[in-house]
Amino acid sequence: MPRRMVILTEGHTNPHTAKTATSLIRYCRDECVALLDSDQEGRTSQELLGVGGDLPIIASLDAAQGADTLVIGIAPQGGKLPAAWKQIVLQAIGRGMNVISGLHDFLGDDAEIAASAVAAGVAIHDVRRNSERDVASLRDFRPDCLRVLTIGNDCSVGKMVTAIEVSRGLAERGLDAKFLATGQTGIMIAAEGCPVDCVVADFLNGAVEKLVLADQHHSILLIEGQGSLFHPSYSAVTAGLLHGCLPQAMILCYEVGRRTIHGHDHIALPPLSVVRDVYESLAAAMGPSRVIGISMNSRLVSADEAQRERDRLQSELHLPVCDVFRHGRQPLVDTVADFYSEHVA
Amino acid sequence: MPRRMVILTEGHTNPHTAKTATSLIRYCRDECVALLDSDQEGRTSQELLGVGGDLPIIASLDAAQGADTLVIGIAPQGGKLPAAWKQIVLQAIGRGMNVISGLHDFLGDDAEIAASAVAAGVAIHDVRRNSERDVASLRDFRPDCLRVLTIGNDCSVGKMVTAIEVSRGLAERGLDAKFLATGQTGIMIAAEGCPVDCVVADFLNGAVEKLVLADQHHSILLIEGQGSLFHPSYSAVTAGLLHGCLPQAMILCYEVGRRTIHGHDHIALPPLSVVRDVYESLAAAMGPSRVIGISMNSRLVSADEAQRERDRLQSELHLPVCDVFRHGRQPLVDTVADFYSEHVA
Repeated sequence: MPRRMVILTEGHTNPHTAKTATSLIRYCRDECVALLDSDQEGRTSQELLGVGGDLPIIASLDAAQGADTLVIGIAPQGGKLPAAWKQIVLQAIGRGMNVISGLHDFLGDDAEIAASAVAAGVAIHDVRRNSERDVASLRDFRPDCLRVLTIGNDCSVGKMVTAIEVSRGLAERGLDAKFLATGQTGIMIAAEGCPVDCVVADFLNGAVEKLVLADQHHSILLIEGQGSLFHPSYSAVTAGLLHGCLPQAMILCYEVGRRTIHGHDHIALPPLSVVRDVYESLAAAMGPSRVIGISMNSRLVSADEAQRERDRLQSELHLPVCDVFRHGRQPLVDTVADFYSEHVA
Repeated sequence: MPRRMVILTEGHTNPHTAKTATSLIRYCRDECVALLDSDQEGRTSQELLGVGGDLPIIASLDAAQGADTLVIGIAPQGGKLPAAWKQIVLQAIGRGMNVISGLHDFLGDDAEIAASAVAAGVAIHDVRRNSERDVASLRDFRPDCLRVLTIGNDCSVGKMVTAIEVSRGLAERGLDAKFLATGQTGIMIAAEGCPVDCVVADFLNGAVEKLVLADQHHSILLIEGQGSLFHPSYSAVTAGLLHGCLPQAMILCYEVGRRTIHGHDHIALPPLSVVRDVYESLAAAMGPSRVIGISMNSRLVSADEAQRERDRLQSELHLPVCDVFRHGRQPLVDTVADFYSEHVA
C-alpha cells in the first residue's frame, strides 16, 4: 500500500539541507502529500527545492489531509533531531501517523516518542537502525553479476541519484539492473537496503557484502555510494562500502565548481584524476576495479559552463561525462551496458 | 590499585587465539594471577603462550587465590562469547570478581550476567562499549606533535606490540612519547583508549580524532593500528583510523612467511611495496604521510631466515627493518626519533 507522506523540513526547505526531502519527492512524488515548513507556507516544492511541481508547503499538520506518515526530511551532519522538531513528531503520532526517520539518533529510543507511538498504535521506522554482526569473507561473489559503485570526491554530489538514474536507464534497455540503497534516503525510496554509515565498524564490510550477495542473481547492481575517501569525517564508511561490494566498475560523481570539502572550507578538493587513482588503488586491494564514467552535478553553473567543463573532462580523462539531469543519463547507461557485455556477460 | 586478574582462555590457550591473554601477560605480568583452562591445568603460561614465566594455568576459579578480576582472554572473529564460558563468568561474579571483556557481544547486555553483577556488587567492564557521536573535522591537529600509526598487511601481525615497544623505547631516550590504544587488548593494558572497531561507522574518524587531540601535548604519539586495508572484513576500521589520526609517519608490520590473509586462504597477500603504496596513497587524501620503518614478526622462522629476510627487505625498501623481540626495537625507535627531530620538533 503506498504511503501518504508529509515531509518535515521546518526551517530547512532548501536543496542542500533537505537532501532527503528532495530525493524522496523526485523519486516517490505520488506518495507525497506536502512539505511541512511554517516559514514557507503557501509556496511550492518546485519553487524551493526545484522538484515536485505544485506539491504544497504547509504550516501545520492540520493542513495535511489524508496523510498517514511523517518523514524527517533532512540529513544533518551528526544525525541529530533538531530540538524543536520533537513536538511536531509527537503531534504526528497523536494524529495516528507513522513516522519515518533516517537520523542517527533513533526516534524509537526517545522514551516519550516510543510511549506515544505505542499508545497511538503507530510505527516508528528508524531506517538507520540495524544489528549487523556479519564479517565479509570475499568468497561468494558471482563473476556473472556486474557490480557498479557510485563514488564521489565529496558528500552530496549525486551518488544516489546517479545510481538510481543509471539503473532505470539500464532497465529501459531491457537489462536486469537493480539499485541497491545504502543510505537513509535511498532506503526510504527503495523500501529496502542497508544503512551502512550506522553499522558498527567491524561489521561494515560484512553488511555490504551480505546486501550484494542477496541480489547477485540480477545482471547488474548499481550500488549507492556514501561519503568520500576524501572526506575527513566519513572516509571509513566509503572504504568499507568500496571493499564490501567488490565493484568491477565505478562511476565517479562530483559537483562542478566545488573547490573544498562540504562543510570543511579548509580542505581543498584534489583533481579528479587523483580522486580516481586513489579509489582504484584502494579497490584493487580486494579486486580489480576501474572508473568507467563521470557523473557531473552542474546545478551551480550555466549550461555553457557545464558544456565546457564536460568537454574538458572528457578529453582529460578519456571517459564519458554527463549531468544526468541536464544532459540525460544515456552516456553513463551506455558505458555500464558496454562494460557488462564486454567484461561480464 | 592494581588488578589481580585471572585470564580465561578455556580451550584456547595458544598464542594465536589467546592474543589478548598473551599481550596482557606480556605487558601487565604483575597484575596476572593465573590463566584459566581446565584442559591445561598444571602447565605454565610460558610453555603454552611463550610469555609469563611460571604464571600457572588453573582448572577452576577455586585455585585462583586472591584474584579480584576475570578477564576474557580471547578475541574471536565476530567477537562472540563461547557459549560454555557464560557459566564461568557467572561463577566469577558469584565469587565477587569484576569482569573485563573485549567482546563485541557486551556481557553487560546479558540479562542474567547483568543481574548477577548487580546482586554481587561487582563491575562488568565491556571495553568495546562506546557511544561515540563526534565527526572528525581535521582542524585542530598540532604540527609539533608527531603522530605515528602502526599499520599492517593483515590482522595479528604485531601492530599493538610495535606501538607499545617503540613508545617505551622513545621514553627510555627521554622523549615524551605515549602509546594510544585503539583495540580491546591495548585498552586493557593502557587502561584507556578508544575501541575503534566497535564505533558506529559515521563516527569512527571522529572518535579517533578526539582520541588524538586529547593527547597532542605529548611530543610523539604511537597509535595502535587495527586490521588492514587488505583484510576483506576490517578495512573500513583501518581506513577510518588512518584518516582520523592524520599520521605524519607509519610503521608497517607484517609476519614473515605468511602468504594469505589471516582466516582467508583464498586471498593472497601483496608485496610489501604495494602495501606501503596503498597506505601512503590513502593517507595522502588527508595529509602527507609515509612509511618510515618495517616491523617484522618472525616467530614462525629461524633466526637465520629472519636475518636473510631482514637484509632483503632493507635493501629493497630502503627502510629500517626489525623484529622488536628478536632484534630489539632500537632501529624503529631510532627512525621515529630521527623523523621527529628532522620534521616535527
